[in-house]
Amino acid sequence: MFTAVLTEGPISRVALARRLDLSSAAVTKAARPLIEMGYLEELAATERTGPGAGRPASPLAIRADREFFVGVKITRDELIGVVCDLRAEVRASAHRRLAATDVDHVLTELGELVDDLLDGPGDYRSRTRRLGVAISGDVDHSTAQVRYSPFLRWRDVPLGERAGKITGLTTSVENDVKALTTAEQWFGEGVGVDSFALVTVGAGIGCGLIVNGRLVSGSHGVAGEIGHIGFDVDGPECHCGSRGCVEAVAGADAIVRQAREGTGRPELTFEDAVTLARSGDAAVGAVFARAGTAIGAGIAAVANLVGPARIVVSGEGLSAYDLFEPHIRASFQRQAFGAAADCPLSIRALPFEQWARGAATVSIKDLVGS
Amino acid sequence: MFTAVLTEGPISRVALARRLDLSSAAVTKAARPLIEMGYLEELAATERTGPGAGRPASPLAIRADREFFVGVKITRDELIGVVCDLRAEVRASAHRRLAATDVDHVLTELGELVDDLLDGPGDYRSRTRRLGVAISGDVDHSTAQVRYSPFLRWRDVPLGERAGKITGLTTSVENDVKALTTAEQWFGEGVGVDSFALVTVGAGIGCGLIVNGRLVSGSHGVAGEIGHIGFDVDGPECHCGSRGCVEAVAGADAIVRQAREGTGRPELTFEDAVTLARSGDAAVGAVFARAGTAIGAGIAAVANLVGPARIVVSGEGLSAYDLFEPHIRASFQRQAFGAAADCPLSIRALPFEQWARGAATVSIKDLVGS
Ligand SMILES: [Zn+2]
Ligand SMILES: [Zn+2]
Repeated sequence: MFTAVLTEGPISRVALARRLDLSSAAVTKAARPLIEMGYLEELAATERTGPGAGRPASPLAIRADREFFVGVKITRDELIGVVCDLRAEVRASAHRRLAATDVDHVLTELGELVDDLLDGPGDYRSRTRRLGVAISGDVDHSTAQVRYSPFLRWRDVPLGERAGKITGLTTSVENDVKALTTAEQWFGEGVGVDSFALVTVGAGIGCGLIVNGRLVSGSHGVAGEIGHIGFDVDGPECHCGSRGCVEAVAGADAIVRQAREGTGRPELTFEDAVTLARSGDAAVGAVFARAGTAIGAGIAAVANLVGPARIVVSGEGLSAYDLFEPHIRASFQRQAFGAAADCPLSIRALPFEQWARGAATVSIKDLVGS
Repeated sequence: MFTAVLTEGPISRVALARRLDLSSAAVTKAARPLIEMGYLEELAATERTGPGAGRPASPLAIRADREFFVGVKITRDELIGVVCDLRAEVRASAHRRLAATDVDHVLTELGELVDDLLDGPGDYRSRTRRLGVAISGDVDHSTAQVRYSPFLRWRDVPLGERAGKITGLTTSVENDVKALTTAEQWFGEGVGVDSFALVTVGAGIGCGLIVNGRLVSGSHGVAGEIGHIGFDVDGPECHCGSRGCVEAVAGADAIVRQAREGTGRPELTFEDAVTLARSGDAAVGAVFARAGTAIGAGIAAVANLVGPARIVVSGEGLSAYDLFEPHIRASFQRQAFGAAADCPLSIRALPFEQWARGAATVSIKDLVGS
C-alpha cells in the first residue's frame, strides 16, 4: 500500500482500495501506523469524490521529507552523490574526483562525499539512515556485493558492508542500469505499466527490463545485454568475442575508432567526433548514423521479443543524442515487427546525477521492502 | 495447490506445504474437496519421510483419468487432434485433411474430428468437457477470438464461441507457439523454473517466453518475434519490410529460395533441399549453415536480453534439425554474452501432434484457472 501511495499518490482511500482490491476499512487500518510514524499524511479535503458522495475525500500522501536517502554513482574517475527525499526528489548533490580506483581509496572518498552531503545545509543527517550505491558490472543486490566490475577492475568486493561501516548508513548496492531502471519504474515513465525498458548508451550499450511488473535478472546472471545482440554479421570484432554486436558499432570506443578510420586522424577524441559530425563532416556523420541504426535495431529486438509498454533511451553517450536520434527512430521503425512499432520511445540525455538518484531509489525500494 | 500437484506431483502433504509456504492443515483442508471430486487421490504410503518421521507419507497425486481434454492444432492443410488426460498425456490422436481454409469448412471438419476422437475406443465422451484450439497468428486468448491469422487469411473470427457451439465443449483458443510454451511450462522442460523460452523453427521462426513465472504477451500485442530480430543488416529483404531478419535467412521459404539460387534449380522444394544437403551438396549445405547461424544469433539475443533458465528449440522445420543443430549451437555460443552461454539449449524435432497437445494443455490450464 505504501508503494502505491509512493508511486501514484496523492490518492484517496477509496481509489486506493479500488486499486489494491482491498476494503476501505483495510486501507484505513493499514494507513494508521504509517501516519503515526510520519510516512503518510492526510491532505486537506479539497474535492468531493463525485455526485452524491457522502464524505469529502482526504487523499493520502507521502510525507516526502520524513526520511532522506543518499545515492552515489561510482564511475571510473568520479563519485556523484545526491540526497533524495522519499519521493526521490533530489535535494542536494555533490561530486568528488577519484585519483585512483582501488577499493580503499574509493571507500575513503565515498565516506567524505556522504559527510559533505549530510552535513551541508539542509540538516539531512538526522533523518538519513540509508545509502544506495550504483556501479556498472555484475552486482549481487541481495548480498550488496560487487562480483565483477570491469571498469574499476573490482572482483568480489563486499561493498555494502564496507560502505556501511564507513558511513554508518544501511547500504544497498545495485548495478547502475538496474538502479536507473528502478528509478524510472517507481518515479518515472515506468509508473503504472507492467513492462518497461530503459536503454543506456555510452561506453557500453545496456538495458534494464521490467517484465510482468518485476526487474528481469536473468537465470544465469545475465540480462539486458542489448549491446551484444548481433547487428551486422560481417561487422567489426567485439570485445565479447563475437563480431558486429550493437556495442561493436555504437559503443563510445567503437565510434572513436570508426571516426579515426574515417578521417585518417588517429588522435581524434569522442568530443572531436561529435564536433565534426555537428559541423557536417560526412565521414564522421556516417559513423553516428550507423551507430544510431545499430542502437535502433537493438531496441527493436527488445520490442519484438518482450513488447514493453514504453522504452526510454538515455545515458551519458546521449550528450550527442541529436546525432543519434533520427537514426535510432528510423531503424527502430524499420525493424520493429507490426504493432511493436507502436511502442513509444523517449530519447533523452540523462546526467550522472540521475544515476545517483537511481542509487537512492534502490535504497528507498529496499526500505519499503518490495 | 492443484497446479503444484499437477506439475510436480506425486508429492507429500509435507513437501507440498513447504513448497507453497502453507501449513499442513491448510493443505489437508484444500485437498479434501479435490479428493472428493476425484481430481486428486492419496497414493499408498510407500516410504517414510525420513528418520524419526512419525507417520508414513501418503503422497497426493493427480487422478489423470478424472477428466479428458481435446486439443486441436489448425494448419493450412490439416487439422491434428488429440485427447489428453489431466496430466497432458496423449491418449488418442487423429488427423483430417482440409480441402479449404474458410471458417465454415474448418469448423465442420473440426466438429467431425472431435466426434472421431471422443466416440472412438476409450469412452472419452462422458469425461470430456473442454477443447483447446491452437492456431498461428494473433489470437486473443481471453475472448477466444482469432484476430488475424495470415496463413488461413482469417480476421476477427470468434473461434471459441463457434467451435463451442459445434462441439458442445467449452473452448479455449490460443496462439500455437504460446500453447506449446504452456505445455513445456506445465509438463515439460519449463517445470519449476521462473523463466523459459521455446523457439519454433518452420515456415516462420517464433518464440514463446516465460519471464518471472508468466507468459510474456507484449504490451502492444507483439512478443516473441525472434524471427524479425536483425541478423545481417545487408541481408535479403524480409516480408516485414526490413532486411536480413532471422526469418528472411532461416524461414522455410527463405531456405527454398536460397537453395534454388545456389543450385540454379528453380523447381527445388524444401524436401529436395534437405536431401541435397544431407548428400553433401556444398551450396545447399551452406544455406542450412547460414540459416542455423541466424537462428543461433536470434536465440542468443533472447538469452542476452532476458536470461531464461533453459531454451527449447523445436518446430516442424526441425525435421531437418541434423542440418541446423551444429550451426545453431556454434552461433549461440559465439553470440551469447558471458554466462548467458551457460543457458542449456535443447534442440529437438516436435511432431504436430505435440502442438495439438499444447492446445489441450491450454484447456487444462483454463480449467485449473491460473
Ligand atoms: Zn559483443
Ligand atoms: Zn522481418
